[in-house]
Amino acid sequence: MNQISRFARATREVRVALLALLLWVPAAFAQTDPLPSWNDGATKKAITDFVTRVTAQGGADFVPTEQRIATFDNDGTLWTEQPYYFQLAFAFDRVKEMAPQHPEWKTKQPFKALLDKDMKALGASGEKGLLQIVAATHTGMTTDAFAKEMLDWMATARHPRFDRPYNSLVYQPMLELLAYLRANGFKTFIVSGGGIEFMRPWVEKAYGIPPEQVVGSSGVVKFEFGSDGKPELMKLAKVEFIDDGPGKPVGINRFIGRRPIFAFGNSDGDLQMLQWTTAGPGARFAGIVHHTDAEREYAYDRQSKIGKLDKALDEAKAKGWTLVDMKHDWKKVFAFEP
Amino acid sequence: MNQISRFARATREVRVALLALLLWVPAAFAQTDPLPSWNDGATKKAITDFVTRVTAQGGADFVPTEQRIATFDNDGTLWTEQPYYFQLAFAFDRVKEMAPQHPEWKTKQPFKALLDKDMKALGASGEKGLLQIVAATHTGMTTDAFAKEMLDWMATARHPRFDRPYNSLVYQPMLELLAYLRANGFKTFIVSGGGIEFMRPWVEKAYGIPPEQVVGSSGVVKFEFGSDGKPELMKLAKVEFIDDGPGKPVGINRFIGRRPIFAFGNSDGDLQMLQWTTAGPGARFAGIVHHTDAEREYAYDRQSKIGKLDKALDEAKAKGWTLVDMKHDWKKVFAFEP
Repeated sequence: MNQISRFARATREVRVALLALLLWVPAAFAQTDPLPSWNDGATKKAITDFVTRVTAQGGADFVPTEQRIATFDNDGTLWTEQPYYFQLAFAFDRVKEMAPQHPEWKTKQPFKALLDKDMKALGASGEKGLLQIVAATHTGMTTDAFAKEMLDWMATARHPRFDRPYNSLVYQPMLELLAYLRANGFKTFIVSGGGIEFMRPWVEKAYGIPPEQVVGSSGVVKFEFGSDGKPELMKLAKVEFIDDGPGKPVGINRFIGRRPIFAFGNSDGDLQMLQWTTAGPGARFAGIVHHTDAEREYAYDRQSKIGKLDKALDEAKAKGWTLVDMKHDWKKVFAFEP
Repeated sequence: MNQISRFARATREVRVALLALLLWVPAAFAQTDPLPSWNDGATKKAITDFVTRVTAQGGADFVPTEQRIATFDNDGTLWTEQPYYFQLAFAFDRVKEMAPQHPEWKTKQPFKALLDKDMKALGASGEKGLLQIVAATHTGMTTDAFAKEMLDWMATARHPRFDRPYNSLVYQPMLELLAYLRANGFKTFIVSGGGIEFMRPWVEKAYGIPPEQVVGSSGVVKFEFGSDGKPELMKLAKVEFIDDGPGKPVGINRFIGRRPIFAFGNSDGDLQMLQWTTAGPGARFAGIVHHTDAEREYAYDRQSKIGKLDKALDEAKAKGWTLVDMKHDWKKVFAFEP
């Protein structure tokens, strides 16, 4: 090879490499659908149009990165909540597991009803009974011990219908939406009525949302020194904060301190979060997952005891919020085929 | 210019550009002291050694990025807290400003004492009087209205000794430390006994810490609809959470959900945060700002009413925590020369 060809080839190679480098990033984005599990249509377009608008530098609706706060309900919005909240399944399973250490439960309601599988008596114990079960299974231990129990349960328990670990029942389209928002500079938060200590141990792996971006209901926790002389945080049987309904904007204000510009829910418990989000100035997005797919997941709304969607459904229609029709808008529901 | 020279030059130019690009980043870091306002010595070395250890990939003390949580007290740790907490100065100024709308304060304690500048009577009203002043100036308005009042005050009020805006009294060495930690993958949080709503409007600009990374004391907030039909968050005259002393690890658990590996305070109110931080497994750092510089700032510890440092000073010495001697360890205290 002579001098000229060598230089020519070297130059060409470097140029090609540089060009490839320059082209790669935009090309990679342009060619990939960020929401592959969403069917094309008005819902998907509402989402991508909003994100395009608020991220267009110099555009009328541009929002600086630090203000791109997106909040998501968890139960029924990011994962399944039927036949009952998974945290309740955890509490019920824990009662059965703890029963040998609590012989008094054989005669004491609501524990007796639960252990006897007497669903009628359990139902009759009402909210008071439920709180007793939650207190017995969620308090009187350190935060570290609770996190361990929670993760042990998640690793072994199975959903009654799908016969899979509960944390595999996360919605694939919503995982894509979370990743799409983060790729566009959004900070994604969970704002759930569920227990904050129940969610934190597993949501980072499941959703890519770190513990410090999880807002939820909580009980009082006390700092003390354990028998080993080490400091510990003890979970007390006292409710501290209920992050549901009007509690959601309150929780958002307390934990995040900024108003979201994007929020997603699925029930009347999310109504005030959506109202609070959309009442701010500038471009705003409110989305609701409407469970319309009894075949692949569940179908329920106005009459459901779990995840009732009634007032928020009316308001969504009146205000033009984005309603996700699970059956028609989602190509797939879970990462697996049910 | 002939073919050969043209190709040769083009190749050389591209190569030089690539090389410069490759060399620039590490060179820029290697040549700059990330903590220029810290004097060389044991304190500065303790900080940089710790950061080097936990960020050394493959090292025995390596900590993954998502677990690099650093928490900082605010009053006396990131900014001055003498002659009294700046939030108190805000409350006192607000009482004077609001007095025309409250003729009853002319005869009602503790307001009368404050308006008459009767410091003895004000002191006699004790903690109860103080809470009445805080309630009168911090509640009964929306969160948005409070943030505006807070920022208006910050823009106009002046510190009695330094005659400068309060938010200029942030410690330059601590600003450098926050930036240094963030450059090394840490997430920096404020964990302060001060009011969360009092800090959030200004700390992002001052410290680079966004509102969602601010933990503080709080009052109850209520979601409601204003007279304009828009949702709003109303601040009620009821204490919700005191983020001080044993409340700090509780606040850390509630808001962050992870144990810090690095914490900095300056008073006994930070003791439990430092205990909680250092009791975790692996490498841990606890630092205390010791106010030893009456000339450039203030000198106080065991006897001080504000920012008392007594038990935590003993424990720091017993446990080998890093004590910052403000007079000797800091080349400068503020960005300006006092």
